[in-house]
Amino acid sequence: MRAAVLVEPGRIVVEERPVPQPGPGDVLVRVASVGVCGSDAHYYREGRIGEFVVEAPLVLGHEASGTVVAVGDGVSAERLGQRVSIEPQRPDPGSIETRRGDYNLCPHMQFYATPPVDGALCDYVTIGAHFAHPVPDGVSDDAAALCEPLSVGIAAVRKARVTAGSSVLVTGAGPVGIVTIQVARAFGAVDIVVTDLDERRREIARSFGATATLDPRSDDMSAVQVDSYIDASGASAAVDAGIRAVRPGGTVVLVGSGSESMRLPVQVIQNRELFLTGVFRYANTWPTALSLLTSGRVDLDTMITARFPLENVVDALESDRVPGSMKAVVQVAPTVEEHHGTQ
Amino acid sequence: MRAAVLVEPGRIVVEERPVPQPGPGDVLVRVASVGVCGSDAHYYREGRIGEFVVEAPLVLGHEASGTVVAVGDGVSAERLGQRVSIEPQRPDPGSIETRRGDYNLCPHMQFYATPPVDGALCDYVTIGAHFAHPVPDGVSDDAAALCEPLSVGIAAVRKARVTAGSSVLVTGAGPVGIVTIQVARAFGAVDIVVTDLDERRREIARSFGATATLDPRSDDMSAVQVDSYIDASGASAAVDAGIRAVRPGGTVVLVGSGSESMRLPVQVIQNRELFLTGVFRYANTWPTALSLLTSGRVDLDTMITARFPLENVVDALESDRVPGSMKAVVQVAPTVEEHHGTQ
Amino acid sequence: MRAAVLVEPGRIVVEERPVPQPGPGDVLVRVASVGVCGSDAHYYREGRIGEFVVEAPLVLGHEASGTVVAVGDGVSAERLGQRVSIEPQRPDPGSIETRRGDYNLCPHMQFYATPPVDGALCDYVTIGAHFAHPVPDGVSDDAAALCEPLSVGIAAVRKARVTAGSSVLVTGAGPVGIVTIQVARAFGAVDIVVTDLDERRREIARSFGATATLDPRSDDMSAVQVDSYIDASGASAAVDAGIRAVRPGGTVVLVGSGSESMRLPVQVIQNRELFLTGVFRYANTWPTALSLLTSGRVDLDTMITARFPLENVVDALESDRVPGSMKAVVQVAPTVEEHHGTQ
Amino acid sequence: MRAAVLVEPGRIVVEERPVPQPGPGDVLVRVASVGVCGSDAHYYREGRIGEFVVEAPLVLGHEASGTVVAVGDGVSAERLGQRVSIEPQRPDPGSIETRRGDYNLCPHMQFYATPPVDGALCDYVTIGAHFAHPVPDGVSDDAAALCEPLSVGIAAVRKARVTAGSSVLVTGAGPVGIVTIQVARAFGAVDIVVTDLDERRREIARSFGATATLDPRSDDMSAVQVDSYIDASGASAAVDAGIRAVRPGGTVVLVGSGSESMRLPVQVIQNRELFLTGVFRYANTWPTALSLLTSGRVDLDTMITARFPLENVVDALESDRVPGSMKAVVQVAPTVEEHHGTQ
Repeated sequence: MRAAVLVEPGRIVVEERPVPQPGPGDVLVRVASVGVCGSDAHYYREGRIGEFVVEAPLVLGHEASGTVVAVGDGVSAERLGQRVSIEPQRPDPGSIETRRGDYNLCPHMQFYATPPVDGALCDYVTIGAHFAHPVPDGVSDDAAALCEPLSVGIAAVRKARVTAGSSVLVTGAGPVGIVTIQVARAFGAVDIVVTDLDERRREIARSFGATATLDPRSDDMSAVQVDSYIDASGASAAVDAGIRAVRPGGTVVLVGSGSESMRLPVQVIQNRELFLTGVFRYANTWPTALSLLTSGRVDLDTMITARFPLENVVDALESDRVPGSMKAVVQVAPTVEEHHGTQ
Repeated sequence: MRAAVLVEPGRIVVEERPVPQPGPGDVLVRVASVGVCGSDAHYYREGRIGEFVVEAPLVLGHEASGTVVAVGDGVSAERLGQRVSIEPQRPDPGSIETRRGDYNLCPHMQFYATPPVDGALCDYVTIGAHFAHPVPDGVSDDAAALCEPLSVGIAAVRKARVTAGSSVLVTGAGPVGIVTIQVARAFGAVDIVVTDLDERRREIARSFGATATLDPRSDDMSAVQVDSYIDASGASAAVDAGIRAVRPGGTVVLVGSGSESMRLPVQVIQNRELFLTGVFRYANTWPTALSLLTSGRVDLDTMITARFPLENVVDALESDRVPGSMKAVVQVAPTVEEHHGTQ
Repeated sequence: MRAAVLVEPGRIVVEERPVPQPGPGDVLVRVASVGVCGSDAHYYREGRIGEFVVEAPLVLGHEASGTVVAVGDGVSAERLGQRVSIEPQRPDPGSIETRRGDYNLCPHMQFYATPPVDGALCDYVTIGAHFAHPVPDGVSDDAAALCEPLSVGIAAVRKARVTAGSSVLVTGAGPVGIVTIQVARAFGAVDIVVTDLDERRREIARSFGATATLDPRSDDMSAVQVDSYIDASGASAAVDAGIRAVRPGGTVVLVGSGSESMRLPVQVIQNRELFLTGVFRYANTWPTALSLLTSGRVDLDTMITARFPLENVVDALESDRVPGSMKAVVQVAPTVEEHHGTQ
Repeated sequence: MRAAVLVEPGRIVVEERPVPQPGPGDVLVRVASVGVCGSDAHYYREGRIGEFVVEAPLVLGHEASGTVVAVGDGVSAERLGQRVSIEPQRPDPGSIETRRGDYNLCPHMQFYATPPVDGALCDYVTIGAHFAHPVPDGVSDDAAALCEPLSVGIAAVRKARVTAGSSVLVTGAGPVGIVTIQVARAFGAVDIVVTDLDERRREIARSFGATATLDPRSDDMSAVQVDSYIDASGASAAVDAGIRAVRPGGTVVLVGSGSESMRLPVQVIQNRELFLTGVFRYANTWPTALSLLTSGRVDLDTMITARFPLENVVDALESDRVPGSMKAVVQVAPTVEEHHGTQ
């Protein structure tokens, strides 16, 4: 099979590899679409993200959909032929965290495209059968792949305790910001304020449900007061201003990744008893993601601004530098047209 | 002023009474609209609800809107002229329950139209300034009055832990059922199953967001499985079947009032670890109610099937027996047209 | 190996069986102690509990401790020789409930001594490595076995939201009631009211931390008002009176198993917005159980009123009818003295 | 009456003032004991705490007990003669925060000894009747006064989600650290690790329930892993190290006040999904405080290292600089001996 392999920072080679065999409890998935994440581009350019260092050839890509083509021991043959959205994690079922339901925090996690675990930019991947979530016909391959970033948004909005009538501030209108806006609206938020330096992104934010957008360089944020604040920028200045915009008893969720440490206005956190937390991937989000997608509460297809074949994976990884780009998808082997409607 | 007084079961007299004076911290409100609740009709017909017995002449009505026309000591004169939705309760600020935020459970509560406290079917009422919630221009007098039953729905849906992607069963498609359906949808529910004996009501339920409706006498409920179940019927058979439809770890909220006790399938509750609770009025719901109303997430005006002047209050109380009736409103003194748009 | 097999209601035979082999991820445990539960006695006498029917020979016993003597594939050899307390369940790691952390609610659960899964009244058992919890030296074999009923108490007290300063009512001072009392105290409860028909049991309750005990036949319960109520009796009259003793906003947890349905005072539940739920086994309790045991916050050894060898298992099952009996333990093969101190 | 008035930074004058009159809903309290808080000393020395500036003569002291000697309108005469612990806040009952139960976050709060509101270092004070909590006979005047710092500990431990079996890290073993240790133990914590630079304070910490103490300059903290971390030092280095000691999904509560902002290890917070919050005073803590005190779960009297008459208030404010000092109390007018036992 073909696999796009990061052999050193800045160099990806599409090479032939053997098709993997599904282990007990696994399924083998023919990959259809793979979304490109900022972390893929980061590994591609820098060869590392924080303490995670690429020390051997690595297949990138962790936002993937496809079709089940083989099953391992203990998995029903009824799964064969099923279109699936892949939740790209393999937690240890025995860890304290997994047993508590926080399997994303499992210390023995194996996660796609995180060294040394290969990802999905290839023809075939294996995954635990229960992490290959069946996808209804009306959902496109691309949208099924983007359930992964959607899950980040769901994890963030849950932790932010967004509910009907909530007001929310989102800083950063990149792909994670846009899914967060959509998810916040799906959770019932009625006021969704979004900041971004780029007017084009602010416009996209409004088209996806932002009720107000601000340019943090020129607009006054002092009048903003929200129940929940979600950072999708990783920018220290955004986070400082964002925290100051939260009402007493409100929540702060840091999704964007930036530096190892950050200067935070702790007196504001204390005096208003804010709850501040972060999001590390997600757990138990796929059922919600698929419900929101199927019911039309979120729209992932429209977020896609570029599609590439596997051979052009480098273009896909570089596309975040194209003005107006929002989300690129690598279409490894799209399933036949008849299966779905909205692509 | 005029007041519609229940002088004995089955007999209401519209009589003259002095206009009340607002006490410290209170506002005086010129009443615009008053929704008719099943409990008003029950007091009118039976003279009692459970342990609450009408032993002296009583003004009914607890779903009310109006305009602030006078303020008591300690209340800003800026409130004068404000259109308001009335939260018809006066908890004791010092009780344990009130201080904890559960002011609806305050044992010293004074509540409109609950003996011996008079209600709002009259020209003027007083209420604590902070329980007279300002209403934006786009909201009609009638909708402002119906923030009260909407609050019941909000309280129920909150306790039912409905969130984005949830599935919900609502038994009973009367006024409370219909607001509950709307609120569940606003909280992100994607599957909303509704049962009612009356096909007309099932049709209304679908028009307000039910994704499936069932006739409990003829349709099979055994295939229904939901995250949350809210009873708005008070019927024992509905509650029994509803509880059996809830998935492990799900919630049951009993809103409908029926008998003092009920036979419940406790083994199902135990084996699935369901959380069962009830709703007694509401607390901290008006900000949410007004947000949902203003943002168009719920529609109260369309629920109204009949409007009456104060003189015809008996017709209003009897209107629940008119086929096709959903919600009646007594328009005591509607505010002038220019104030609002959607009436 | 020896196994005490229930061959038909009322008849148990100690017979020879092959020692089981630990599968992948499992450990093989030499059984030390097994506590006798009311459900064991019930299966022994009736051959069924509700919908669970003994249709083939069954080994009873699900409260067990022992020593790891072999490990399956993927389990570290360091586990060999470890003294362990067995959490007697095998949930499916892929089910929705397990992934959410509610693995006790997993629909594919295999649980010791629940037909058709054999239990621990035998020389050797297998269990998932992560469900064999290492036990410190100071904890006796018997206490390690009784972590199972202790876990029921922990699950109940957690759901009852007992915290520092809480008042709690416990109805029923059998083994589950007694562990519940101890756990409630460990969670910080300061007022623990216990009812039981048997004065001997009320006395035991006081010795384990009850601050007041009542005879429900003669004592007035109308003055009792508590934050949390936990039923450990399964008796309908107790539950009815218990619910009426809970303050507004308080909790009710039904642990005792009785009939399939029960008449409950729903109006009290509604008007006080009580939260009522049940306990079905437990999840994520063993770390807490072992902490409480090791720190001396709970005492399981003193609860044991009779010990039997495996050959006398019928006496053990019948011992609940001995006046003054609280908890019987079958000592299958106690570990050598040097390992622990408090036996 | 006598009042100790801070007339300018560093200068306190005991002067005569008129006895205040209790307003509606208030009680007048003859002050018995007043604990000295670090914030009192800070106002005394600096004339300000952050944005709170002493611009007019101010009576300090907000940890107070006494006896009700007069009641305002609407307060039962049965309160007369009652010994009380004062919760020194007057929230606005109508604010959103108060109605939600978070009255400590009320933006219209009037709080003792916070400019321009006078405190309790005087003979008589007024307070809302429901904020004067009746004290049982066995509780000393001093302990009743110290329910205030105890409440800070309760608020912190609640937010830290400490429960039975928890492990907790407390940095800083001053008065707030010591009450926090005691409260954590009362909530069921079994491992309580405490750090302080001063060995004398570490020893006191052990005597009040710390299970391990560390000197952060010399001891290795890298092996510490806890469920909950509470900072009672306000020191940036302590907070950084403390956050790194929290297990995935654990909690961080910042009680100590330091600078306006602080550099925090946000990547740790994100990757472990820690919940970080602060404590600003307290709400709904007095019932718990009095329960813990009465049941002997916490001991406040032993924490007191010095007692002064009102005339020596300056010595009391300076006593935090006396080596070995933990908590000073000003005994304004102790109630007669017969009332209580443990003084």
